[in-house]
Amino acid sequence: MNFQYWNSEIEKMPRQDLEALQVKKLKAAVDQALKTPFYKERLTGAGIKSGDDIKTLSDLRKIPYTTKHDLRDGFPYGFLSIPKEEVVRLHASSGTTGAPTTIYFNAGDIKRWTGYVARCIYGTGCNKTDVFQNMITYGLFTGGLGFHQGGEEVGMLVIPSGSGNTTRQFRLMQDFGTTVVHATPSFLLHVESKMKEEGVSRDSIKLRKAFAGAEPYSEDTRRRIEELLKIDVYNSYGLSEMNGPGVAFECQCKSGLHLWEDGYIGEIIDPDTLEPLPDGQTGELVLTCLCREATPILRYRTRDLSSFYTDACACGRTHRRLRRITGRTDDMLIINGVNVFPSQIEEVVMAMKEVGNNYLIVLEKEGVLDRLIVKVEVGANVFMDDSRLLNALKEKIRKTLQAMITINPKVELHESGALPVSEGKAKRVQDNRPKDV
Amino acid sequence: MNFQYWNSEIEKMPRQDLEALQVKKLKAAVDQALKTPFYKERLTGAGIKSGDDIKTLSDLRKIPYTTKHDLRDGFPYGFLSIPKEEVVRLHASSGTTGAPTTIYFNAGDIKRWTGYVARCIYGTGCNKTDVFQNMITYGLFTGGLGFHQGGEEVGMLVIPSGSGNTTRQFRLMQDFGTTVVHATPSFLLHVESKMKEEGVSRDSIKLRKAFAGAEPYSEDTRRRIEELLKIDVYNSYGLSEMNGPGVAFECQCKSGLHLWEDGYIGEIIDPDTLEPLPDGQTGELVLTCLCREATPILRYRTRDLSSFYTDACACGRTHRRLRRITGRTDDMLIINGVNVFPSQIEEVVMAMKEVGNNYLIVLEKEGVLDRLIVKVEVGANVFMDDSRLLNALKEKIRKTLQAMITINPKVELHESGALPVSEGKAKRVQDNRPKDV
Ligand SMILES: [Zn+2]
Ligand SMILES: [Zn+2]
Repeated sequence: MNFQYWNSEIEKMPRQDLEALQVKKLKAAVDQALKTPFYKERLTGAGIKSGDDIKTLSDLRKIPYTTKHDLRDGFPYGFLSIPKEEVVRLHASSGTTGAPTTIYFNAGDIKRWTGYVARCIYGTGCNKTDVFQNMITYGLFTGGLGFHQGGEEVGMLVIPSGSGNTTRQFRLMQDFGTTVVHATPSFLLHVESKMKEEGVSRDSIKLRKAFAGAEPYSEDTRRRIEELLKIDVYNSYGLSEMNGPGVAFECQCKSGLHLWEDGYIGEIIDPDTLEPLPDGQTGELVLTCLCREATPILRYRTRDLSSFYTDACACGRTHRRLRRITGRTDDMLIINGVNVFPSQIEEVVMAMKEVGNNYLIVLEKEGVLDRLIVKVEVGANVFMDDSRLLNALKEKIRKTLQAMITINPKVELHESGALPVSEGKAKRVQDNRPKDV
Repeated sequence: MNFQYWNSEIEKMPRQDLEALQVKKLKAAVDQALKTPFYKERLTGAGIKSGDDIKTLSDLRKIPYTTKHDLRDGFPYGFLSIPKEEVVRLHASSGTTGAPTTIYFNAGDIKRWTGYVARCIYGTGCNKTDVFQNMITYGLFTGGLGFHQGGEEVGMLVIPSGSGNTTRQFRLMQDFGTTVVHATPSFLLHVESKMKEEGVSRDSIKLRKAFAGAEPYSEDTRRRIEELLKIDVYNSYGLSEMNGPGVAFECQCKSGLHLWEDGYIGEIIDPDTLEPLPDGQTGELVLTCLCREATPILRYRTRDLSSFYTDACACGRTHRRLRRITGRTDDMLIINGVNVFPSQIEEVVMAMKEVGNNYLIVLEKEGVLDRLIVKVEVGANVFMDDSRLLNALKEKIRKTLQAMITINPKVELHESGALPVSEGKAKRVQDNRPKDV
């Protein structure tokens, strides 16, 4: 394979140099953080009075963790380290619960962020001959503007189509020969279903690549999208607290996401003991931002579960790779006392050829017991009147799920297109259990 | 008043130098245009073989007009003058009818466009201490990204809130001390009504300025917004064919919109004879873009009606001022043979204190005659059960309208909030007359 590097020197930097660079940037980040009300108190309390208290990378452990809760407590300016008039933008994540978290950027921050996204995009083999349709929400959400900026930096023709309106998206793809899209994996599945429905032929579009992120998805979902749409799908990872997209991305080897370690320090910790775990072990990802001045965030507990690969990547990049995010510490479901991740259910369901592109996990209370209902759309080629076939499929899903999660679910089959579709982040779990119990 | 200039040398350039600059840039624009399939044919047909055929500004008249129809015929690449791989973005206007028109930008085009928007914003007295909430759609529409870029260039804190969701907009204004917003005038009126409804106190927000554009509105509407929200409202003019926002903008004198003549050549023509009209006379605005390489457009018939002021502006800028756009040649209504512009109706309605923030023009056929119905919301302080007062108001509106447009309309009064609200461009006219008659 012919790999291409946006910044070859940085991307293939020997580990020793990369870590020396991290120490240097971490010192600066600590100095910057000490200018914020939050870290002035937090770091001083931990005995850190200046960046010079960081001598080696292991000194990182002296720094206390920062949580989502801290960010909310610090709202609106507890994490701002520069005069307000130097800020040129803010992004806010509405979050699924509670107050939004807000990140401020100065002009340099935007420029650096753009550089990281460009590096991700270019690393998948894109260049200025590509036409890039950015099918994701623009605005306060970082995914739209983040990819837009990165795409223009690479020199692709960027079509700022935004999310939704599938019919118009097809039209744009056909009119301008779109070669690459960015979307949530669930929207990509929706696009495929709609193509069939509207009779848009695969030959009428030139699509060959997609960046999929903003929600966790399984390897089976990726394969499904790749096969159905006949494209390459690259896994994207980012979060607004770390700028947005551009934190970690798959290279053309598609085995793990390179974390850009010149911009972010990554650690995996045990979410219960909070002790750092060695590479290879799965735990909560903790990130320190080295590339943003206006809003320094150190050792942020992302609540995302992952692990680092221990082997080198064939692409030659030295930046460690994260395993695809399989879930979040806080989206773990507790069903009759058993821990279940929605991703486990997705893995089973999406691996089956007879299953369509959408599913929904519903939780209900039956007396004192939790009831897990998995609603699954059948594929467009499955006839809903063949009850023997449907019953067999239902039973197959139920058994495989039970083997995977030890819980016996109720499985419901639905016609293709019958389950609700979200055009942004998919809502896969409907927890109808009373909250107080 | 303390005027501030983004580029003092350019903005106050003596007319003679400004026109010499226009000639120089027009030569380059013609050369660039000759690289497109459309203009190669069109210009050669008119005897123009190179930019050198332009010697003086009056040679502009040798260039044939370009219409919306031409742009659509040239879709998708008839107006593209550079290799596709040099394009970094496209914007498309969906238009109210027909196929979208598409404009391509290279990196330099985006930079220049951003500079013009920054010039507009800075000229209203904004600076990097301002917090700018961009309450307009991001994406293919140029208004969102255009103002976003310009705002960041000025160094304001830009909140990319996008359009809609009034409750969230208030929250953002309160949380971050928003001082300036960009929105359609109809959305600003909607914001004011909602503030009352949700009990948001004026003291809880720091707003002091708004940029209003994307739809024509009357001076009375401006005054109404200014008085209700206690802010300064600046009139913005742009169109996607000329990049988007940043074409012409009010300075702090608020008497006409300075057309940035180093970037655009403006002419006013008689829409019937197509002859250029002298400054002061009202006609169709024709624009030539001097600041974009990727998609050159010469002598574009905007269909917008305006005229140039003939006196100098107190701000010292030498760039001629356009009168606010009062309508478009193609939104003129023909009612029983009489020409009526929706703006004439708006002017009457919005000047009345008893009238609320929304109205709708409906056209119907009664036998062979057209029937004009003007639906008007009453102010929040008008009681709908005081029938004497309501009848008097109705009669007052009817009479004033008849005096203005010579047609006797049916006037309907509605409760505050009863008429449909659009969060993007307002739809003020509902023409229910059969199309074939
Ligand atoms: Zn790699
Ligand atoms: Zn002026």
